[in-house]
Amino acid sequence: MANKITSRSENYSEWYNDLVKAADLAEHSSVRGCMVIKPYGYAIWEKMQAQLDKMFKETGHQNAYFPLLIPKSFLSKEAQHVDGFAKECAVVTHHRLKNSPDGKGVIVDPEAKLEEELIIRPTSETIIWNTYRDWIQSYRDLPLLINQWANVMRWELRTRLFLRTAEFLWQEGHTAHATAEEAIAETKQMLEVYATFAEEFMAIPVIKGVKSENERFAGALDTYCIEAMMQDGKALQAGTSHFLGQNFAKAFDVMFSTKENKQEYVWATSWGVSTRLMGALVMTHSDDDGLVLPPALAPIQVVMVPIYKTDEEYDLIVGKLNDLASALKIAGVTVKVDSDRQKKPGWKFAEWELKGVPVRIALGPRDLEQGNIEMARRDTKEKASLPIEGIVDKIAREVLPSIQSNLHQRALEMRNSRTYRADTYAEFKEILEQKGGFILAHWDGTPETEQKIKEETKATIRCIPLDSPSESGTCIYTGKPSERRVLFAEAY
Amino acid sequence: MANKITSRSENYSEWYNDLVKAADLAEHSSVRGCMVIKPYGYAIWEKMQAQLDKMFKETGHQNAYFPLLIPKSFLSKEAQHVDGFAKECAVVTHHRLKNSPDGKGVIVDPEAKLEEELIIRPTSETIIWNTYRDWIQSYRDLPLLINQWANVMRWELRTRLFLRTAEFLWQEGHTAHATAEEAIAETKQMLEVYATFAEEFMAIPVIKGVKSENERFAGALDTYCIEAMMQDGKALQAGTSHFLGQNFAKAFDVMFSTKENKQEYVWATSWGVSTRLMGALVMTHSDDDGLVLPPALAPIQVVMVPIYKTDEEYDLIVGKLNDLASALKIAGVTVKVDSDRQKKPGWKFAEWELKGVPVRIALGPRDLEQGNIEMARRDTKEKASLPIEGIVDKIAREVLPSIQSNLHQRALEMRNSRTYRADTYAEFKEILEQKGGFILAHWDGTPETEQKIKEETKATIRCIPLDSPSESGTCIYTGKPSERRVLFAEAY
Repeated sequence: MANKITSRSENYSEWYNDLVKAADLAEHSSVRGCMVIKPYGYAIWEKMQAQLDKMFKETGHQNAYFPLLIPKSFLSKEAQHVDGFAKECAVVTHHRLKNSPDGKGVIVDPEAKLEEELIIRPTSETIIWNTYRDWIQSYRDLPLLINQWANVMRWELRTRLFLRTAEFLWQEGHTAHATAEEAIAETKQMLEVYATFAEEFMAIPVIKGVKSENERFAGALDTYCIEAMMQDGKALQAGTSHFLGQNFAKAFDVMFSTKENKQEYVWATSWGVSTRLMGALVMTHSDDDGLVLPPALAPIQVVMVPIYKTDEEYDLIVGKLNDLASALKIAGVTVKVDSDRQKKPGWKFAEWELKGVPVRIALGPRDLEQGNIEMARRDTKEKASLPIEGIVDKIAREVLPSIQSNLHQRALEMRNSRTYRADTYAEFKEILEQKGGFILAHWDGTPETEQKIKEETKATIRCIPLDSPSESGTCIYTGKPSERRVLFAEAY
Repeated sequence: MANKITSRSENYSEWYNDLVKAADLAEHSSVRGCMVIKPYGYAIWEKMQAQLDKMFKETGHQNAYFPLLIPKSFLSKEAQHVDGFAKECAVVTHHRLKNSPDGKGVIVDPEAKLEEELIIRPTSETIIWNTYRDWIQSYRDLPLLINQWANVMRWELRTRLFLRTAEFLWQEGHTAHATAEEAIAETKQMLEVYATFAEEFMAIPVIKGVKSENERFAGALDTYCIEAMMQDGKALQAGTSHFLGQNFAKAFDVMFSTKENKQEYVWATSWGVSTRLMGALVMTHSDDDGLVLPPALAPIQVVMVPIYKTDEEYDLIVGKLNDLASALKIAGVTVKVDSDRQKKPGWKFAEWELKGVPVRIALGPRDLEQGNIEMARRDTKEKASLPIEGIVDKIAREVLPSIQSNLHQRALEMRNSRTYRADTYAEFKEILEQKGGFILAHWDGTPETEQKIKEETKATIRCIPLDSPSESGTCIYTGKPSERRVLFAEAY
């Protein structure tokens, strides 16, 4: 393996960068801030997409596609929204190039200047609600439950692969409802969908909560979120679901006639997850030897490596592995037989370890004689010699599900062991400096206090957990009364 | 049905526009030249995507994702390529907006001007080959078989939904090979994949051929294509596959070391189909009553409409239809039971006819008593009363396949009846003016002659058909010798 990965203890951030590149997930492109998602990384993203898309459709949503470009004036129609996004917009000003008069390359044709500049969508509320005005007339047109898979662009100065890039891929749901109650129920339903996806497919335990005002989506009345803990104790926001009230309906004049024939503004939600989830997946489970993937999202669940000396042995062993692979495929398992003759088994072992394949099978002539194979689990690194008889069932029904649940359990234990309660500001700062992790603490509920704590410690309120019990206390910063603890952490 | 559709005989072009809107496939957005793909239209596109993606993967391709934005200088590196695309580029010049000094809305921040302008990809050869330089070192890295699903932008002055829009969705394959032979074989393989998809899934007969120089992709040595005939006799290019030679490898300096350790430039292909296929699908099969969809791509294959008067009848009939729907689903058929109580059966019949659902089932109390249902085919408009017993099998195994093949057969007969041979220019012009359609004629092989014929008749060479037999003759325009007939038509 030419690609040396920095260890986590040495430098967690370098470890992440090294790993994303070495495992062929993504790389920086020559376009500032934009990434190339490589085939192996994209295959994981496709698995995420397929599962999420299924869950969206099961909850009654349909996909559609809206324009990439948004007229500049649309952005200004919702006051908070434009404040949130104007400073990081890619702006299209011209629609043509022409040959440079000096004969060297092309220049922007000044005669092809647009009357109104167009913005590459940073998110699509404005263009979509401008469209919904024509789609919604009556209560019979509601609810309107639409999702879009798309690329979006937010000009970022400091970028990191998957975690923060100028262009990223995501899905954005945009729904329209007749009542506030129904829109709030939708917002919460999609939060549950995201939480289920994170827990059951990504094997990432998440905390469901609602954002404080400072961290709310620009234009939302409430932002719900799921927050996950990475191995360095920092938080990563893994998905958000927004209750937008009537803000966008008012900005774009979207009204409907009720059953009683009254004209009312429509209620809205929006919700999204992005390729950022790839970063969360890597940082939750992987180790110093490479990626560790939960079986539910692994493009290859089982890799098989033949051990041989002679051509006859090669044919015999690869033949047997191909038979096993066919049987595993029938059992619904994705398999690769790595029958490359140029590379040595040791090289292959390291390569597939780096790529996070959950189960590795090795088979040599002596194993075969004894009716055994060697199986290695990527999560625990355990190796065992097992009878070939019954191995297909064992892998499909026991080993893969066990890896999936072990990864979740391990992440949960990590999070539990690094979640603290702080009752004083001194204690709060000490935990952040010396240990890092999640801190449950009392807060007086004001944006000013949150801002000061952020400036002094870098920690922000990740969310007010939905299951946070009511508990009287005093704000760690101001000493003012507080009715419940909120979740603080330094965040990605 | 509030949406009146112009008849084809009255105005084919208006018929198309009316139908795309009335059937809820797409609409123009408020962003000039860009469309909104509505949920029903997007559901058809998703079916196309799923099938094509499967076929790409079966032929060894992997998906990846490259940046939306391309540095202006990249475009200039391949001379023909920049000539082909520079005049229709959306150009990003700034990365920030700021509040307008007059307090009204936002303006482009002049301080956020980019050092180098970025182009929204019109196609991705340049950014991808700039990336491949780092991915390819040795013959062991080849072939590199990659596909991307993406949005692209080509600034068009005259737009039509699906057929020609500034932004469209597509897939673009970009492969790299060690030899010209291998790259040419890949180019032809993907042409076959497209032809198979068009014939077997879209039920559209296509002519496979190679483009004349005038119609070649900007930067290609050869462009292969599939051409389909629409109901007005015009041709529509439904997919292209390009042999790019070493043009992009040379422009971006992509070399590999051969087995003999020599440095050579890499050979390239690219190939794509787009949401334009939606236009081809509509224009091939549909009629004055609405869309006609081939079962293989229909989001709903069977719709069921209950006929009832009383609540008891409604419960009984809908219950029976739900049972049938479950059985059909198990047989792999997509079904919708339209149990809406606000709308009358006649309204529903017209609605689902408009949306092109291949099979309609109606069931009333008397039918049920007699053990029959009424089945109507969208393609032939035939209605029949059939025994409920065995209906699931009949629909899944007979009716749907029969509709699929009938649509193909009908389109093939239409094309055959409107394909002519012309031996003189007078004959050629007469056919174009009086009948329209495909014309097989001799051509002297020069771009000048093709250009003059185009200027005088609007007809272009759609392709030199791959199965065109060698046949001596004389060019209809210049009288110069010709060795085979080529395919002329007016085109979309």
